[in-house]
Amino acid sequence: MKFGGTSVADLERMRRVARLVAAEAEAGHEVAVVVSAMAGRTNELVAWTDAAGEATAGAPASDDEYDVVVASGEQVSAGLVAMILRNMGLCARSWLGWQVPILTDDAHGKARIEDVPPDKLLAALGAGEIPIVAGFQGVDRQGRLATLGRGAGDLSAVAVAAALKADRCDIYTDVDGVYTTDPRIEAKARRLAKISYEEMLEMASLGARVLQGRSVELAMNQRVPLRVLSSFAEPGQSDNAGTIVCDEEEIVEKRVVSGVAYSRDEAKISLFGLPDHPGVSSEIFGRLADANVNVDMIVQSHARQAGAANMEFTVGKRDAARTMDIVTAAKGAIGFEDVALDDNVAKVSVIGVGMRSHTGVAQTMFKALAERGVNIQVISTSEIKISVLIDVAYTELAVRALHAAYGLDKI
Amino acid sequence: MKFGGTSVADLERMRRVARLVAAEAEAGHEVAVVVSAMAGRTNELVAWTDAAGEATAGAPASDDEYDVVVASGEQVSAGLVAMILRNMGLCARSWLGWQVPILTDDAHGKARIEDVPPDKLLAALGAGEIPIVAGFQGVDRQGRLATLGRGAGDLSAVAVAAALKADRCDIYTDVDGVYTTDPRIEAKARRLAKISYEEMLEMASLGARVLQGRSVELAMNQRVPLRVLSSFAEPGQSDNAGTIVCDEEEIVEKRVVSGVAYSRDEAKISLFGLPDHPGVSSEIFGRLADANVNVDMIVQSHARQAGAANMEFTVGKRDAARTMDIVTAAKGAIGFEDVALDDNVAKVSVIGVGMRSHTGVAQTMFKALAERGVNIQVISTSEIKISVLIDVAYTELAVRALHAAYGLDKI
Repeated sequence: MKFGGTSVADLERMRRVARLVAAEAEAGHEVAVVVSAMAGRTNELVAWTDAAGEATAGAPASDDEYDVVVASGEQVSAGLVAMILRNMGLCARSWLGWQVPILTDDAHGKARIEDVPPDKLLAALGAGEIPIVAGFQGVDRQGRLATLGRGAGDLSAVAVAAALKADRCDIYTDVDGVYTTDPRIEAKARRLAKISYEEMLEMASLGARVLQGRSVELAMNQRVPLRVLSSFAEPGQSDNAGTIVCDEEEIVEKRVVSGVAYSRDEAKISLFGLPDHPGVSSEIFGRLADANVNVDMIVQSHARQAGAANMEFTVGKRDAARTMDIVTAAKGAIGFEDVALDDNVAKVSVIGVGMRSHTGVAQTMFKALAERGVNIQVISTSEIKISVLIDVAYTELAVRALHAAYGLDKI
Repeated sequence: MKFGGTSVADLERMRRVARLVAAEAEAGHEVAVVVSAMAGRTNELVAWTDAAGEATAGAPASDDEYDVVVASGEQVSAGLVAMILRNMGLCARSWLGWQVPILTDDAHGKARIEDVPPDKLLAALGAGEIPIVAGFQGVDRQGRLATLGRGAGDLSAVAVAAALKADRCDIYTDVDGVYTTDPRIEAKARRLAKISYEEMLEMASLGARVLQGRSVELAMNQRVPLRVLSSFAEPGQSDNAGTIVCDEEEIVEKRVVSGVAYSRDEAKISLFGLPDHPGVSSEIFGRLADANVNVDMIVQSHARQAGAANMEFTVGKRDAARTMDIVTAAKGAIGFEDVALDDNVAKVSVIGVGMRSHTGVAQTMFKALAERGVNIQVISTSEIKISVLIDVAYTELAVRALHAAYGLDKI
């Protein structure tokens, strides 16, 4: 059972968490718990490290000390939840990352989990104890604290579940499952009973913030069934079944499309009048890769005049200005005529493993958008998703149109 | 170098701490640092554990989880101070209690330090690193976090200094040394250049809150010279010499009396008409000891009527009501006529190792008080101190009279 920061934001919420844990234990399950820091706590700690770490030129990086400071947040919530469970008469104790241990590499601030030896936690479970594991943190081979990156509490939970060979990893969060689309945009959005790992991965990368992508990937690789459900329900509440994230084979009723996702965090860069010869793309994208700019959608087309091409690609909004600088600086080397930035764009995507075996999925999308007068600027596809870039003003309209076109309000 | 909570209360103060540390390092000293939690932080964490630990009947104690939560405070300040030192170009890193390790017993919340293996810290110092040790915390033999009790940051510092065989343990605090008496009462109070461990121990137990008693005791046993000085001075400030706490033999200019201490935290219990036969005292004080009441001064005297005695003793104010309950309940068993409580009393003490070899010290005290019309209710003495119980209204008058009588304004 994994509880995020909003689920343990204060002692009242921690008591609710404890009731949920107690209910599972009383139902006869062996339970291990992973908790995040109290909501807001990590931000406060990070702000202090920012102030303390005001880098002066040539000063050594302090990512290891950042980890020491920030990891204290999960330590506090693990201890408090253990105390509350004990006061309910249960046997519980906190486990810090170094105590489990959750072994990581030494990439401080964004460490990767290397191993989770399960012996100690299994012994605790065997003795009837409920381990409350501090999420987000581990220890490197030198015995220094290491954190796994923001939002990595889910990752800790999946890693612990995999190590314990748990039957399931329940991620309790502030929503009650994974929806066919954002319910704030489409009131007819339905909660999915099941979704495949791969679909969930695409959802996560396309802006649906229910689960962190790395944790879904780990769950898929380690074959840990995930369940996303609400931490604000009371124990035993019958409509808190959540959404199971599992292998495609375990989903009996296959849908062609499982969900519609969107992201407004996009910016489109257009290059006009590029020389139409090999090596131009690698010239551009090599420079961006060197600067750690993540490029998403790319289309290239022939320009009106012979021997010239146009290119459009998208980057995250926060990288837009930097991308323009890099591209503009390389104008001479690349040899294009003009460049333009448009950040009034949104990416809308439909996701479904059923696309592999069904034809006409893209056609349904294009038709639904055309009927509402939504102009498609860029298209990109993968095996299980189709994304289009549109004018940001049409985002909600497009999401609702696609939700209806694939019959997602009827599942 | 040890810095308390007010010295690392915020990032600005931590930067001052870092400058003080850097100055020592630049002067060619090998330095290890021990820090407390940011002021106010521990209280906040303790309040959370109080709320989480609302004990229900029969629930197991959670002192081990209290330690997990509360120890996070020192973890944060150690990490931040290390970051700041690095940004000043120094080589520093944080050391948590379990990393040093500071090995303790498992009396959680008030653990005793059992051992501090120095190897890792010595290796760090040898490599030119400044270790920033989280005070107040250690780890028990089971690998659980343990804290040493409130105010035990000084104790951590002395233990680390002893383990490293440090030349000195500098306790930076919010006062600039140990004074002949409380400067808030007597403006002529002087800072002592040196004071013996035993005098300091008496001072600490008599209400002078500069150093925690346990840390002075450990320093005495381990022969670690202590220095108390201000953390609010700038590096190299010439008048920040502080006070050295050391062996009596190292103090060349012996004084008869080194200081005047006082405590208003006293309550006097008077028992009248006790049977004058053996076993009465053990009857009374046995019951109080069983209830963990600490009795301080005791006098017994014959009453006017033959075969009867009166007795007076003092306890801490917070134990007064409980003491009255215990004594009253035992009235039949002990067989006294009447009991009275007076908490309008104060204890004023003069302390000095010179008493051992000088006569007339007590007489000077009694004469000075008598001249000001201060009535002495109870007297108690040890080898190096004389304490008197007086009406609380005369506290300041008595302190000033004694300060002058022993010439403490002229040292």
